[in-house]
Amino acid sequence: MSDSQPLETSSRIYQYSIISAFMDGQTLHGIPLKDLGKHGDFGLGSFQLADGEMILVDGTAYRMSYDGSITVAEPSTCLPYAMVTFYTPTVTVAVAGMLKPNFQKHIEDITPTAKNYFLAIRFDGVFKKMRFRIAKGQDVPGANVMKTITKTQRVIDMEDVEGTMIGFRSPGCYQGITVAGYHLHFIKKDRTTGGHCLDFEIQKGITGISIIRQIDIELPDSDDFCEADLTLDNEGIVKAE
Amino acid sequence: MSDSQPLETSSRIYQYSIISAFMDGQTLHGIPLKDLGKHGDFGLGSFQLADGEMILVDGTAYRMSYDGSITVAEPSTCLPYAMVTFYTPTVTVAVAGMLKPNFQKHIEDITPTAKNYFLAIRFDGVFKKMRFRIAKGQDVPGANVMKTITKTQRVIDMEDVEGTMIGFRSPGCYQGITVAGYHLHFIKKDRTTGGHCLDFEIQKGITGISIIRQIDIELPDSDDFCEADLTLDNEGIVKAE
Repeated sequence: MSDSQPLETSSRIYQYSIISAFMDGQTLHGIPLKDLGKHGDFGLGSFQLADGEMILVDGTAYRMSYDGSITVAEPSTCLPYAMVTFYTPTVTVAVAGMLKPNFQKHIEDITPTAKNYFLAIRFDGVFKKMRFRIAKGQDVPGANVMKTITKTQRVIDMEDVEGTMIGFRSPGCYQGITVAGYHLHFIKKDRTTGGHCLDFEIQKGITGISIIRQIDIELPDSDDFCEADLTLDNEGIVKAE
Repeated sequence: MSDSQPLETSSRIYQYSIISAFMDGQTLHGIPLKDLGKHGDFGLGSFQLADGEMILVDGTAYRMSYDGSITVAEPSTCLPYAMVTFYTPTVTVAVAGMLKPNFQKHIEDITPTAKNYFLAIRFDGVFKKMRFRIAKGQDVPGANVMKTITKTQRVIDMEDVEGTMIGFRSPGCYQGITVAGYHLHFIKKDRTTGGHCLDFEIQKGITGISIIRQIDIELPDSDDFCEADLTLDNEGIVKAE
């Protein structure tokens, strides 16, 4: 890293719904992509019925599907949970030869005054290993996601793969509102596959970080959201994420 | 109440800092009142060094001081924690003869689809009894507020007092971010005293409620916020509030 780079904060995060509601099965309603795009060009989310994984890269939202394929999401596509920002990195650093925990520790080390802020994180480069999952759409609409996602998801392992990883680090006190800690999605450089990062080993690449100290949370305007059980299940979220 | 009134949502809450940071002693820095006013004309908060209680009524912010007196806060006044909105009630209802728990239950009963949303609440009328507290400014700047506030606060009891109560009801999952449940401040009609509501019995008056499904949280841009311990102390917040 360059020590001379200032650790400035920038921008804001916009989040639609909260992760506890999504995990409780509030997957039927959501924000249309064309509206979400007003709040960011960078981020991640999920689709109706938790069908696949969303990654928003440079203003384009991709639907990464259970069968391993990818399509560019339509403007009318509805997202029951999403977290986005207009990404303007204030720290950019070359990284090489790092397992996931080392990568995360490295990010903490180069943002020492940001532990109570949000971080938007982007990595572009080559992974020696990348393990990601893709959620399978619900058979029972509105059923609890937390209980089923790890049982029905597809896990894909790739080696020596080039791509982009995008996501956020949230302070622990937001668990249940967001995913506490790191929440990262991956897309292959040729845009043929990708998903929700479970584990990885970075070979080499560039990481950008944006320190963010504002989060705007919009709650769904739907009957089923009103019924959701938002009681925090920390263990369940950690397991599912 | 009038059953014909629609339970529409409106507006957004703007919150500066999070209650866990304030309770941990992040009381030195804050948002100037003139900036806070851009985000609301209704709400509550605290002052530098936790010195007194703030209530924002119809666009005027009052500093309710430990000695029981009140002044209109200056535009440059700095608030380390505040929660405000532009208040537009969507439910208005006459209430009479209610203890605090009955009043809260009544609010839940007339907003049955809003349990997972925020409520902005205003009551204007006469209290048979009102018990409120006013925080004493810190002797040790930046010291933990949660451990000291209930020991140093002044508690005032009044009977047959007319005034206004203003505040918010937050869903339980936001504990630590906001104050979960009801957080209400009181000001006497003649603006001579007021504070943070501890207990009350309503004689009669009018309650307005605004159902809010967006909250924008801005975190302080200060070194001491970065050092704050934001680990949730649910018992401590409940005791302090």
